[in-house]
Formats: sequence, C-alpha cells, structure tokens
Amino acid sequence: MTNIKVKYRSPDPRRYRGLGPEDPEGLGLTIAGQSRSGCLHPPRSLPVLACAGLDRMAGRRLLFKCELLQKTGSFKIRGALNAVRSLVEERQRTGRELPRAVVTHSSGNHGQALACAAQAEGIPAYIVVPRSAPQCKQDAIRAYGATLVPCDPSDKSRAETASRVVQETGGVLVHPNQELAVIAGQGTIALEVLEQAPQVNAVVVPVGGGGMVAGIAVTIKALRPDVKVFAAEPSNVDDCYQSKVRGELTPNLHPRDTIADAVKTSIGPNTWPIIRDLVDDVLTVSEEEIKRATWLVWERMKLLIEPTAGVGLAAVLSEQFQAVPRDVQNVCIVLCGGNVDLRSLTWLTDLSGKAE
Amino acid sequence: MTNIKVKYRSPDPRRYRGLGPEDPEGLGLTIAGQSRSGCLHPPRSLPVLACAGLDRMAGRRLLFKCELLQKTGSFKIRGALNAVRSLVEERQRTGRELPRAVVTHSSGNHGQALACAAQAEGIPAYIVVPRSAPQCKQDAIRAYGATLVPCDPSDKSRAETASRVVQETGGVLVHPNQELAVIAGQGTIALEVLEQAPQVNAVVVPVGGGGMVAGIAVTIKALRPDVKVFAAEPSNVDDCYQSKVRGELTPNLHPRDTIADAVKTSIGPNTWPIIRDLVDDVLTVSEEEIKRATWLVWERMKLLIEPTAGVGLAAVLSEQFQAVPRDVQNVCIVLCGGNVDLRSLTWLTDLSGKAE
Repeated sequence: MTNIKVKYRSPDPRRYRGLGPEDPEGLGLTIAGQSRSGCLHPPRSLPVLACAGLDRMAGRRLLFKCELLQKTGSFKIRGALNAVRSLVEERQRTGRELPRAVVTHSSGNHGQALACAAQAEGIPAYIVVPRSAPQCKQDAIRAYGATLVPCDPSDKSRAETASRVVQETGGVLVHPNQELAVIAGQGTIALEVLEQAPQVNAVVVPVGGGGMVAGIAVTIKALRPDVKVFAAEPSNVDDCYQSKVRGELTPNLHPRDTIADAVKTSIGPNTWPIIRDLVDDVLTVSEEEIKRATWLVWERMKLLIEPTAGVGLAAVLSEQFQAVPRDVQNVCIVLCGGNVDLRSLTWLTDLSGKAE
Repeated sequence: MTNIKVKYRSPDPRRYRGLGPEDPEGLGLTIAGQSRSGCLHPPRSLPVLACAGLDRMAGRRLLFKCELLQKTGSFKIRGALNAVRSLVEERQRTGRELPRAVVTHSSGNHGQALACAAQAEGIPAYIVVPRSAPQCKQDAIRAYGATLVPCDPSDKSRAETASRVVQETGGVLVHPNQELAVIAGQGTIALEVLEQAPQVNAVVVPVGGGGMVAGIAVTIKALRPDVKVFAAEPSNVDDCYQSKVRGELTPNLHPRDTIADAVKTSIGPNTWPIIRDLVDDVLTVSEEEIKRATWLVWERMKLLIEPTAGVGLAAVLSEQFQAVPRDVQNVCIVLCGGNVDLRSLTWLTDLSGKAE
C-alpha cells in the first residue's frame, strides 16, 4: 500500500504517454484547429460542459467531463494506452524485446480500448470474450485488429483462458482495473479537470473495479487535497460501499443485475487501499435513479451516455447528496462512456446491421 | 434582393447581439473555465468535433459544428436572440417604447428559441401552437415563460391566429426563417466555423425555410468566397432543389412526410434570392439515408442529434457527393439540433413524464 501511495503522490502529466496535448497520437474526437491530419486529439481538449437546467435540479454548479467522446467511446482508452506505452518504453529502456502481445478478458469498454491502444503501438492484442457477448461488441473489438478468443461465460473460464493465451503467445496480461499503469492512465482525467475547471470542489466518479476512481483520487489528493472525491455505485452491486463501511475489501460474491453494466465488477486488491484512504465517500443509487439520470443527460444535454455514466449524476441528484455541505458548489461529474446498444431503439431498429 | 445582398455583404460579429464571446448573457452549454456564474456561454465556444471513422466513410475530413448543444437544443436561439435584441436596440435608439410582445407560430425549435430569447430580454412571448402538437414541446415552450395560443393544425389557422395575437397584444411577429434579423443571427454559425476551422473548404447545411443556409451563405461568401456552401434537403420535401433547378421559387404545395420534421417547411421570399445567388448546390437525400446518418452520429459520435441534423451527413455520404472535387477536403457539417422525442425509446419508455 505504501508503495502505491508513494508511486502516485506526485502525478506528472509527462508520465502518461500519449495523453499530453503535444502528442499527435492523442485520442478521441478532434477539436478542429487543434488537430493534425490523420490523428486524433489529445483528450484534454475534450470539453467540460455544463447545463443550467441540471444545475437548478441539483442546486449546485455541475461540470460534466465528457469521456463518452473519447476514442472507443469511453475513458478506458486512457488506461489502456498508458499501459501499452509504459510496457513498450520499459522494454526499450531495459534493452529487451517488445512484448509479443497484450492480453485481457473483457467484452466491454476495456477490451475495445486495449485493442485500439495495441493497434496504435503495432502490438498484437488478444481479447478473451465470453461466447455470449453481443455481436456488436465483438465486432468493435475486431475492428481494431485484435484477435478474439472465445470462452465460457464464467469468471473461471475467462481467467483460465486468459492465462492460457498469455502462455501461448508470450504476451502480457493488462488487467482492466487492477493494473497500476491502467489506474495511472485513468488519473489523467483529474489532471484535465483541474486545469479545465480549477473552481471544482468535488469530483463524482462511477465505481466498478475502481481503476478510474482510484486514479482520480490519487491525482486529486496529491494536487488539490481540498477537492472531495466521491465514488458513485449502483445499490445492486455495492461492494465499494460495503468495503468502506466494513473497512475491508468486500467483493460482491453474487452481484445482482444492474443497467449500469460497466460497473458490475468489484473493486480489487490494488484499487481498494487507494479507495479506502483517498476516496471521501461512496454514494449508492437505485436502478430507477440511474435510468432517470441517464434520461436527463440524453434529453437536456443531447449526450448519448451509457447508463453507467448516469450513475454519477444520479448520485448528485439523490437525497443523500443533500447532506454534502453547500460550499461544495462546483461538482464535476465524469460521464465515463457512451457505448449504448442502439439496437434497443424503436424507429432505428430496422437499420440494425445496415449502418455498416 | 440588392438590398439584402448589400445588407449582408460585410457581416460584423458585433451586429449579432448576445453572440460574441464578450457577452455574459451568451447561450447554450458552458465550457467550464470560460463561463460566469449563472450565465450561459458564448456559442463560439461550442466545439467543432471530428470522428476518424466517419472521415474514412466519407473519404474526406469532416468537421461537425455542434449546434445541438445550444441552449434550447438547436441553432434557432441564434436567430431568435438576434431578432429580439435587434428589436429592443432599435426601439431604444429611436426613443420608442419597447415591443409589448413578440409573437410567432411554431411548435418546434423556433418556438422554444423565441420564448427563451424573449424571457432573457424580459419581453412577453406568445407562441401560436397547433392543438395537435406533442405535449413535451408545449411544455418546453411554457418552461421559458411564454404564453401558448392554441390554433387548428392548418397553415391558414396558424397565420390567422398569429395575426390576431399581434393585433391584440401590440406585439411584433418574428417569422421563423424569413425575418432578416433571424437570418443574420443564424449566420453567426459561419463566423464561428471560419474561426474554429479555417481549413474548411465547404459547409453543408440542412435546409427547410432556408434561414440557416441563407445566413451562412451570406457570411461565407462575404468573408471566404472560396468556401463552398451546400444545402442538404430530404427528397420528400425538395422545394429548395426544385427552386434551384427551375430558377424560381417553387414551394412544396403538398409536402410529403419526412423524419426530418424540422425542414418540412418551404423556403420563402427572403431566403430564396440568397439561396439562388449564393448557395453552390442543393443535395437531396432519401429517408433511409437520413436515418442511417442519424444512427451513425449517435453510434460513432455519441451525440443525440435529431434526424433533421442527420440530413447534412447523409448528403456528404451520398453517391452524389462523390462528384464534388477531391480538393474539397475539409467539409463542415452543421449538426443543427438535438430535440429528439426520447419517448420513442424502449427501455426508457416507462420513465416518460417521470423525469421532471
């Protein structure tokens, strides 16, 4: 634990490869005029948006960090790219061969992000995906040139298959949220928020495995310890909340279902101590609250967030948040992703599969 | 016609009240760090976004001007605010009473925009709305403090009711697209595009009544005549295309239905001569093309545009656009609005009415 704290005490933007404004190989959508031909933009250029109507509902000033606009549709590209580039740099520095492959098990945003990051670095990627994963997610991973490795839809099969692939390929496993370079990469969100919105008094971050909230907490508490860091979690999968209450890592052994599917995972051994020490509080929200918040962002902000990204706003609009002191006036909510399955929409349904 | 051309030959940003970056009463969503407490931001801060995937599909560099993020959810606030503030300023300059009210007939984006602009200026607004208009649109107009005046769902009833309201209230009619101050206000989109993306070679603009494309064409051709201006129109309501082909104003007498409901209107006497002289070409697209383009922006860019805003991308992805010379490389598409009826979505349907 001490190591981790020391490691992250003084985050330095230059450590986060591919994430600085000077980097032509940056990420996400481009702000015109700042882009270079064929390249995507540095994520710090992604806007922080506000919405007067939602401010009135919250009774505070809300600042929305738009990670849904990132390349691959979520913040996960930050951690994945930092992990891959850190690997490459470390191998080069020590005169060793580049990694033969990177491997992970995730049918979701991390799978896409690692595939994209590996492609950018010219390293093969193997993504272990349950056979039951939606075709569209498998297609998205394949579109980044990664090799899909099917497994059974159980944690055991996923882990075993990933281990086997690591052995067979001589690759390196990049864990979606416990890998330290991934956690550090997600922390760059906070670096940008502090620069884009220095008036911020609190940051609210959805928590699943905890990589994002841990990276943000380390960064915030090192640079601006006065800024509160709140984790926001569906009540149906409240392992982070339970862990904080009990003071010990308490994974969900039998997680219930949640519409916020990207945070169904439990926090783990690397994110737990950071959350324990640096996250101010964990707020839990119901499925109805998540749906309503997602609806509001769609309707009022015209941003197509995935329900997981609605968890933060749901927490801020909850009764629980009323207890947060009024001088916590400027609250930044991380809209972490936008990978919605559009095939659930009615008038667009007949287009499924036609749009490419 | 000559008057109009002269009037718009040299657009001056200072003429567009409320739309400069110096104006604390600006519009739309806020870019944090540039906002002031309680105020909305100047629209020029709204981002121009790009998307590598869509670039590949188009074979050109696409730049998306995000008018869906404006306050009231569409570009219409520009014209409405310019019209209301121009009225106020002119009355003050000539020592006359302020207008007692502003009046329009529109159940759509202009109705909301005029209500919002009038509220900002402290002037009563009367919006004539067909009894058949969706409740959510009526609610949105009412939320800006305007008075709704119901009419029958016919053009005749709308016009007659609006005239009656003008007489009864001593108000001023602000036409959604033929009013010159409205056209000028919409032109500020082009001022921003030229500043945010000076590399632009063409601008593609959905056309209904023609206020937006006329304002943009006047501005572009005055400042950067080398930049092409294309109008994009649903084939089902192709009066602008027919007018250009015949060389005379040819309104749709019996417009067919289109999913791009905000451009069902025909161009009119004030926008036609500008379109005739300054718009380079009119591109028409099918309903399928519009739906597919809308889907792509939702899926790839995570921006919840309304189908009308898909018309521009549909045109750029059409076969017809292949004939545009390859040196027209950087193409700006105006994503004009985001007022989608979310009640058409499945998993959110049960929330209708609950989210406020």
